[in-house]
Amino acid sequence: MKHTVCFQPYNVCVEVENGEILLRAAMEAGVHINASCGGEGVCGKCKIILEEGELDSVRGASQSEEDWRLGFRLACQSRVLSDVTVRIPPESLFDKRILRMKPKAARLRALPFDTAELRAAGRYNPAFQKKFLQMPSPTLADNVCDLRRLRETLKKRHQLDNITVDFFLTRKLAEVCRQEDFAVTTTLDFAQRRSRKPRLVNVEPGDTTGRHFALAVDIGTTTVWVRLLDLVEGAIVDELGEYNAQISYGEDVISRIIYAAKSGGLERMQQLVVGTINSVIQALLKRHKLSTEDVSHLTLAANTTMTHLFLGLDPKYIRLSPYTPTLCAIPPVRARDLGLELPLHVYIYCLSNVSSYVGGDIVSGVLGSGMYQESKLTLFIDIGTNGEIVVGNRDWMACAACSAGPAFEGGGIRFGMRATHGAIEDAGINPETFEPMIMTVGLVKPKGICGSGLINLLASFMETGLITPDGKFREDLDTPRIRQGDSGREYVLAWAAETQIDQDIVLSEVDIDNLMRAKGAMFAGYVTLLEGVGLQITDLEQVILAGAFGSFINIENAIMIGLLPDLPLENYQFVGNGSLLGATCMAFSREMLEEERRVALMMTNFELSDTPGYMDRYIAALFLPHTQMDFFPSVTERLRR
Amino acid sequence: MKHTVCFQPYNVCVEVENGEILLRAAMEAGVHINASCGGEGVCGKCKIILEEGELDSVRGASQSEEDWRLGFRLACQSRVLSDVTVRIPPESLFDKRILRMKPKAARLRALPFDTAELRAAGRYNPAFQKKFLQMPSPTLADNVCDLRRLRETLKKRHQLDNITVDFFLTRKLAEVCRQEDFAVTTTLDFAQRRSRKPRLVNVEPGDTTGRHFALAVDIGTTTVWVRLLDLVEGAIVDELGEYNAQISYGEDVISRIIYAAKSGGLERMQQLVVGTINSVIQALLKRHKLSTEDVSHLTLAANTTMTHLFLGLDPKYIRLSPYTPTLCAIPPVRARDLGLELPLHVYIYCLSNVSSYVGGDIVSGVLGSGMYQESKLTLFIDIGTNGEIVVGNRDWMACAACSAGPAFEGGGIRFGMRATHGAIEDAGINPETFEPMIMTVGLVKPKGICGSGLINLLASFMETGLITPDGKFREDLDTPRIRQGDSGREYVLAWAAETQIDQDIVLSEVDIDNLMRAKGAMFAGYVTLLEGVGLQITDLEQVILAGAFGSFINIENAIMIGLLPDLPLENYQFVGNGSLLGATCMAFSREMLEEERRVALMMTNFELSDTPGYMDRYIAALFLPHTQMDFFPSVTERLRR
Repeated sequence: MKHTVCFQPYNVCVEVENGEILLRAAMEAGVHINASCGGEGVCGKCKIILEEGELDSVRGASQSEEDWRLGFRLACQSRVLSDVTVRIPPESLFDKRILRMKPKAARLRALPFDTAELRAAGRYNPAFQKKFLQMPSPTLADNVCDLRRLRETLKKRHQLDNITVDFFLTRKLAEVCRQEDFAVTTTLDFAQRRSRKPRLVNVEPGDTTGRHFALAVDIGTTTVWVRLLDLVEGAIVDELGEYNAQISYGEDVISRIIYAAKSGGLERMQQLVVGTINSVIQALLKRHKLSTEDVSHLTLAANTTMTHLFLGLDPKYIRLSPYTPTLCAIPPVRARDLGLELPLHVYIYCLSNVSSYVGGDIVSGVLGSGMYQESKLTLFIDIGTNGEIVVGNRDWMACAACSAGPAFEGGGIRFGMRATHGAIEDAGINPETFEPMIMTVGLVKPKGICGSGLINLLASFMETGLITPDGKFREDLDTPRIRQGDSGREYVLAWAAETQIDQDIVLSEVDIDNLMRAKGAMFAGYVTLLEGVGLQITDLEQVILAGAFGSFINIENAIMIGLLPDLPLENYQFVGNGSLLGATCMAFSREMLEEERRVALMMTNFELSDTPGYMDRYIAALFLPHTQMDFFPSVTERLRR
Repeated sequence: MKHTVCFQPYNVCVEVENGEILLRAAMEAGVHINASCGGEGVCGKCKIILEEGELDSVRGASQSEEDWRLGFRLACQSRVLSDVTVRIPPESLFDKRILRMKPKAARLRALPFDTAELRAAGRYNPAFQKKFLQMPSPTLADNVCDLRRLRETLKKRHQLDNITVDFFLTRKLAEVCRQEDFAVTTTLDFAQRRSRKPRLVNVEPGDTTGRHFALAVDIGTTTVWVRLLDLVEGAIVDELGEYNAQISYGEDVISRIIYAAKSGGLERMQQLVVGTINSVIQALLKRHKLSTEDVSHLTLAANTTMTHLFLGLDPKYIRLSPYTPTLCAIPPVRARDLGLELPLHVYIYCLSNVSSYVGGDIVSGVLGSGMYQESKLTLFIDIGTNGEIVVGNRDWMACAACSAGPAFEGGGIRFGMRATHGAIEDAGINPETFEPMIMTVGLVKPKGICGSGLINLLASFMETGLITPDGKFREDLDTPRIRQGDSGREYVLAWAAETQIDQDIVLSEVDIDNLMRAKGAMFAGYVTLLEGVGLQITDLEQVILAGAFGSFINIENAIMIGLLPDLPLENYQFVGNGSLLGATCMAFSREMLEEERRVALMMTNFELSDTPGYMDRYIAALFLPHTQMDFFPSVTERLRR
């Protein structure tokens, strides 16, 4: 159920889900309300007056009974239960000039196709399908072997000839056939991958055609996600994530590679991630009362290092120039052979890698987003520790990894942190008072700043004129928030008393410099790939954002700081976890399972460090938004306002 | 080196190998010499006089110095060292009438093709071949993954596109590539089996194209044989056999099936035979200073039960009507997955079974003998515990297992035994004195009679008129050798004092009856299969004998008793161990590896017990040689002589 929230005196309205926190609605609407405790309700600054409608509010400790009766509520302590009108009290007001409606984010696409529609049209065609078979019982005159009986019935009833059979399957065949008097359900893989022939995947007694599941797995350096897919319905049933247990041996791929080089290290890394996957799968199946026997196959995407570690391939050459992985296209592997607690019939279909730093997770996003079928010139971006980028369309694709560093994950930023409890995820600056409005993950007192918070804050600094285009704080401003710190000048986002860490949370010029390097590396990457084929950044027609990060950031602000190219917002799309997306598509669509290798081969990899002109373009991008302002017309416009 | 041995006064000569035992030469020549101790030299009966040439003789305990000086030697204690002429002393002579030259046995064919000839003509084409590759070293501008580098070089240098790759191989790829600076030897499987694409089997550092071996394995119910094959030369290097360790759980397939049904029994059976194969392979490779890494693949043939037990498939339905095996065509299986101590790249290619009692060993013989390409109407026979028979030619084939029972392996015969040390393997009767000439395996005192001995003895009984066509001893003969025993009348082949067992070794009418049932079951089988397609036994154009038994028996005598059809001896061929033969051919010839499934499918199986007319034909065959003498014109002729 949705409600409309209108903010007075601006008369700005925004639509939100039932139960949404009012402070978030204000952020969404681009309405500034002073807020400095992150949403915990202790600073008492984010007061509003309820004029109409229903809010579920908690009364703050600092609020008098009188205030409460007058309709004063704390925005961070109020949930929207109906259409409401609220008024921002004068002390929280700021100049109407910079008020703006935040754009509607392009909808996240769960899948590039509608399985229900495909099923209705008879075009839902997953590679793995179940077929029920009633075989004739054997007699002395017809006593061919069980496998041949099965083959002959498949041929007769389903016109399926010359299927291939995995040996281990035959060990249970005799009993399965006889359990329900030669009535069995076969699972077949129709993907023309190694062979042109359908492959017999599994055989079960009786009719189990109504139960058929697959698992799509994304092994992130940080998190492992598993999706449970219903292949009969073509539906995503559920998904579950857990930290990749390798994380105790280092947060980034490089430290994992180094650990894997130690004696027994590779085996340890392999077992750790397999352990994580096993526990997630187990929890997911248990939640839905399913058995591992109901699963016919597993699709998987991961970056190149994660893929290698999962497969037990030593990734050491990934780290050494000239950065050669062992495997890009990955043969199907029996899940059990890698230690997964799944039946022998379950094989893993891995998305192909392109190069050492453009992995199967990116190919998965390109596949799942449909970029490889687009006529428009498209930029695909996945921002994580590294930023991976792909430009092109259905005719060609170029890709690269930008050594952006982990700045957008909080790395190299003094108070940077991941987007966990207490991280400032959204922030704005009052252009007159230079007071901040902050909101944290979990609506608690702040502990630090995560990527989306950093982008929004930097954009606010630019917009309010707190910083100059080279990332330095202006020295002529009269606010206690800007001061000289240990690492140059800094802005105090939260005072020690308002935090969980009993220190002032600040963003310094050194931090800003690191953010500029990170966004500069990305932008120089786009430009280099485009100019490599004679195109300009302005030729781009659309941008696809993948990754958790892509889903949380404010695109306009990311454009503002020069991280994303300056395209109209309607030309941006989120695909969320691109790695899971492509893996899901492969389970639901035979064509996509067959296409993925071709897609990976289409993607020409560039080593940016070795590509002429990259360094110059990088230096040109170390400016807010960029030295070439004509790359950013909308930002120029916004700054002028 | 060969020598000619001439026997006087018959003036019969025979060619023998240097060092051959003179008694065997006499047997070969069809010359009777009294002999009753089996060849141990203790009865002193097989005396001959050396007239010319050189013998290496041991002086028997019973021989006087005078005799020795006069040239008397014991035939069983003398080895032929040059061309010799010997004279049979009068007391050993018998009527010249029945003297006959034993026919030259058709030569055993080691292979149906000549690999040297094929190599010379450029037509030697094993499915598995090695290709040396010098790949370009990776650079930043060319840093594709190792596997793609290998694929691209294979394509460029050898026009090999789209190879398939086993996952496990990739685990060593990075190190193998870098060991000799990207010079590697690939092993490829060109057989179009599961896929139309060549399969990358192995990759080794440097150039190892000169070393390439395969193993051909025959799992017999009794013995496991392994052949070492040099794929570069196309040569059989060596072979080695060992008792199948399952034998301690029963000598025949039925007792193994019963044991396998017990808890843990199947696993035990599987591990036992795998243990035997492992030890034979190890010994064979050690003998030739080879490593398991030099082996690219393994071909294997066995009867249906042995195949099932080896693969870990429960064979219980093989024994229960309607006798359905689980698998006939067997998918390739990784050797390591079954417990064989071979590298991960080694897969096993099993010959297909046809039915529960016509197994891969028979298909192997049909393949290796080339029967499936013959235009002549051919009978293929493998006599063991069961007798398996195939009739047909390149257009059609019918096959069956005859429940002949183990009579020809000595089973059900009071003094029957396998062809081991002390078994009477050849025997003849003096037509005047009815005294026997016997020779044992190992030339020691007799312990019993093996299959070839039984056939030869029975033929001698017929020829000398000791028995009537219904298998009964004539009652009018004046010889102490025939007497009334516990199981009817019997012939004493060796007196207790001449044996190792301190009992008279006899052959009774009950024994003869069992032999007639066994040969009758076989013969009725041939006739049933032939008449089933409207043909007669007399339409047969050739006979192929497989199996150890087939190699040792005297064909003429086997025809005499009605076990084999009455064809001229030149139309008989031995192929020896047919199971090893086909498995060897599959390793040497891509075409045969590709053909074997088709060959198995060509073979239509008949369950004789369920085939109309079989029982009548069986009863008609319980006669020596048969109730229909027109089936046996040469025997009629021989008996008349």
